[in-house]
Amino acid sequence: MSAAANVGVVGLAAMGASLARNLAHHGNKVAVFNRTYARTEDFMEHHGQEGDFYPARTVEEFVASLEKPRTAIVMVKAGAPTDQVINELADLMEPGDIIVDGGNSFFQDTIRREKAMAQRGLHFVGMGVSGGEEGALNGPSLMPGGSEESWERLKPILESIAAKADGEPCVMHIGPNGAGHFVKMVHNGIEYADMQLIAESYDLMRRGLGMTPDEIGAVFEDWNRTELNSYLIEITAQVLREKDERTGKPLVDVILDHAGMKGTGTWTVQCALNLGIPVTGIAEAVFARGLSSQTELREGAAAQHFSGPDAALDVPADQRDAFLDDIRHALYASKIVAYAQGFNEIAAAGKEYGWDIDMAGVARIWRAGCIIRARFLDTISDAFETGTADVSLLFAPYFKEAIERCGQPWRRIVADCAMHGIPIPCFSSSLAYFDGLRSTRLPAALIQGQRDLFGAHTYQRIDMPGAFHVEWEEPGHPEVQVSK
Amino acid sequence: MSAAANVGVVGLAAMGASLARNLAHHGNKVAVFNRTYARTEDFMEHHGQEGDFYPARTVEEFVASLEKPRTAIVMVKAGAPTDQVINELADLMEPGDIIVDGGNSFFQDTIRREKAMAQRGLHFVGMGVSGGEEGALNGPSLMPGGSEESWERLKPILESIAAKADGEPCVMHIGPNGAGHFVKMVHNGIEYADMQLIAESYDLMRRGLGMTPDEIGAVFEDWNRTELNSYLIEITAQVLREKDERTGKPLVDVILDHAGMKGTGTWTVQCALNLGIPVTGIAEAVFARGLSSQTELREGAAAQHFSGPDAALDVPADQRDAFLDDIRHALYASKIVAYAQGFNEIAAAGKEYGWDIDMAGVARIWRAGCIIRARFLDTISDAFETGTADVSLLFAPYFKEAIERCGQPWRRIVADCAMHGIPIPCFSSSLAYFDGLRSTRLPAALIQGQRDLFGAHTYQRIDMPGAFHVEWEEPGHPEVQVSK
Repeated sequence: MSAAANVGVVGLAAMGASLARNLAHHGNKVAVFNRTYARTEDFMEHHGQEGDFYPARTVEEFVASLEKPRTAIVMVKAGAPTDQVINELADLMEPGDIIVDGGNSFFQDTIRREKAMAQRGLHFVGMGVSGGEEGALNGPSLMPGGSEESWERLKPILESIAAKADGEPCVMHIGPNGAGHFVKMVHNGIEYADMQLIAESYDLMRRGLGMTPDEIGAVFEDWNRTELNSYLIEITAQVLREKDERTGKPLVDVILDHAGMKGTGTWTVQCALNLGIPVTGIAEAVFARGLSSQTELREGAAAQHFSGPDAALDVPADQRDAFLDDIRHALYASKIVAYAQGFNEIAAAGKEYGWDIDMAGVARIWRAGCIIRARFLDTISDAFETGTADVSLLFAPYFKEAIERCGQPWRRIVADCAMHGIPIPCFSSSLAYFDGLRSTRLPAALIQGQRDLFGAHTYQRIDMPGAFHVEWEEPGHPEVQVSK
Repeated sequence: MSAAANVGVVGLAAMGASLARNLAHHGNKVAVFNRTYARTEDFMEHHGQEGDFYPARTVEEFVASLEKPRTAIVMVKAGAPTDQVINELADLMEPGDIIVDGGNSFFQDTIRREKAMAQRGLHFVGMGVSGGEEGALNGPSLMPGGSEESWERLKPILESIAAKADGEPCVMHIGPNGAGHFVKMVHNGIEYADMQLIAESYDLMRRGLGMTPDEIGAVFEDWNRTELNSYLIEITAQVLREKDERTGKPLVDVILDHAGMKGTGTWTVQCALNLGIPVTGIAEAVFARGLSSQTELREGAAAQHFSGPDAALDVPADQRDAFLDDIRHALYASKIVAYAQGFNEIAAAGKEYGWDIDMAGVARIWRAGCIIRARFLDTISDAFETGTADVSLLFAPYFKEAIERCGQPWRRIVADCAMHGIPIPCFSSSLAYFDGLRSTRLPAALIQGQRDLFGAHTYQRIDMPGAFHVEWEEPGHPEVQVSK
């Protein structure tokens, strides 16, 4: 086979196949390879006519079919399968060639791989690909890391296939080595928070106000014409309108209420913990999914019949619209907090790992193609452009004004849910974060006093520099505390 | 030097020196070694008369001074220093000897070290030591992992120095390899939640009710005579009563409100995330410390002058006592949730790593010596004994009754704080967890619907087994969503 393809895709499962087709639709000559050749044949049978494909039976054939310097995009399962494919390709490639990992790899793996490939003279690019199968086919949001040099060469290819927002392609060189996968990870973490906030809003309407899924779907459709306009709000309305084919019931009512997850949300929180950045909204969202899936715990709880309010809010009919407005404001304010925390995590990682990340650019390439695409990412991008969001998105005038405007409704919703027994972990933790941030004095001073007493950890003072310690008198002997 | 010591301690910083003295006070013959000999000389000068010590100048001397089979307790900094000491000891020791790591090592490091030492025929025991310097000296709570055989030999030594609760020594063989360090880690995580809950209660009284530290100290003293009786409540009163020597002001008012941390709280949350166990109380406590220490963020926020309520609760004088009772109930209920979550994490790790952990025993050895020692650990221990707490501590009759009794006050506190702008992340996330647990139907069903739509992740049904997927019609092209 002659070297005719300008780019190749390894792995023709849903995401890989869609990306290969997208590449071909935009005039690229695309080599394709899949470990099981039957899948390649199947791909060629269904999509071979859509563009210039070069199907390969072996990795050797695949590499041989690529023009030099070569560019291969790996779309296989994260972890060991990715390592295996990368190593096979590397053995056949030559210095200057580029390997792109488009899977959901953990960014530390990407850093490790980039280093190993660089030693062999190869460019390795960890690239976040968001938008699911549909995005991969029609225009994903792309977050490549890796070297400047590889970016220069990948740029035209990636710009050709990326989603477009206001005509701009949703792709940007995020930074060296693992920066792309890190930003994609936080994107997913924010997605968890966004979805949990929508779920809490739904629960309020469903159990709190006794509305039907259809009625709630209509509310989300309305909300999609406000500042909440986003893909997730739009599909929420769609899901709520959907009827189950078997029973005719609203689909949402026949779906088992156990939310699954695949790891990126968990990683986002774990990395934030390493960086010392509070991401309370994302953490509560991940924990809420965890709780929902603990069958034994939930069945046990149901058998306990805990006493407590029954979630009905008793909102009079003539106040329903005002109440719905309160929910919308609570959702918007909490969403702003979740995004602010996510961007803080990206900024902190940028410092920690020496990446120079263009925050406005990140917001810009999330405006289309990806799952969290939303109108307000335009505003976020503007806020970072002007430098007003550097320390926190909440400090940018637009968002400060928005969160202040939402304040009272947000508080009323959290208070009502507490009194009526509706769990809203993401609403309430976001409010607590905002109120913590607003506090010029936090009770952390007491914690430092305790730590100095029991662990001699010392404390700092408000009126002079240095570390101080009190020679505490020990309280009664421990044993005294435990007599029954 | 002849082999005369039945146990040795490496590292004579605060914790190691205290533990060595404790050992000597209980009739052990204690070899002591410190990398810098001056510290050993200093130790001998101040404490040499307290018992039978065998100071060593070199590791070789130290090992030679131990009776065979040897037992050496390493009390040095976690991480590389611990590895270095362990390896030096191992090179000089013989099969059957025991090395105990009494530092705050990460349990995965302990698993790794145990395996490496076992290959050399040595017993390696990762042991959690709680109670700070004072506990180490007068009676810590001890959580050893490692082999059964090493436990049999360590038992008399450790029982001699452990704290006593109702006459029982606060030490138990937790389980093999890293089990001891894991349980100690979760102990610390629970401690974070406990301290944050106390801090939130304090903040409510201070900013919400306008009480002085002395007045609040008196409230905590009162509370220490209730079911909240615990070391942390006791020392809180002590810290709040303390006056600053320089200014005469309450000490808590001159302490900088930036809470420090050393990693075990962070690890507890990260491990819980790996295990899929919600530990919302501990996570919020870790995040609250993180937020408190972000100087740039907090200074920026102060400069923003966010509008919102000023934290004053306007509770009439004749309702203050009732309100304080509400806070106490909110604190107790939230504390029960934090402990329930912590014990869930231990149980999940026990399954994951094949440890057979006696949960009642864990609660029992936490009754004295350690920082979270509290009267109610007796009740927790009883609950696990009877098997009623296996799935959740909240299901044990005593705790179910307690949390139900606290329900209304807890809800009032969370609602009041939301309305008045007092951040109570740990109170409110604990309530949200409880209400989530109480919910027979969660909005996670909507999340699964969304996931099926954008990622073809499939969903399960309430009425039949299997994985299902809807052929969703794609909503409008992404680009539509982002027009300004």
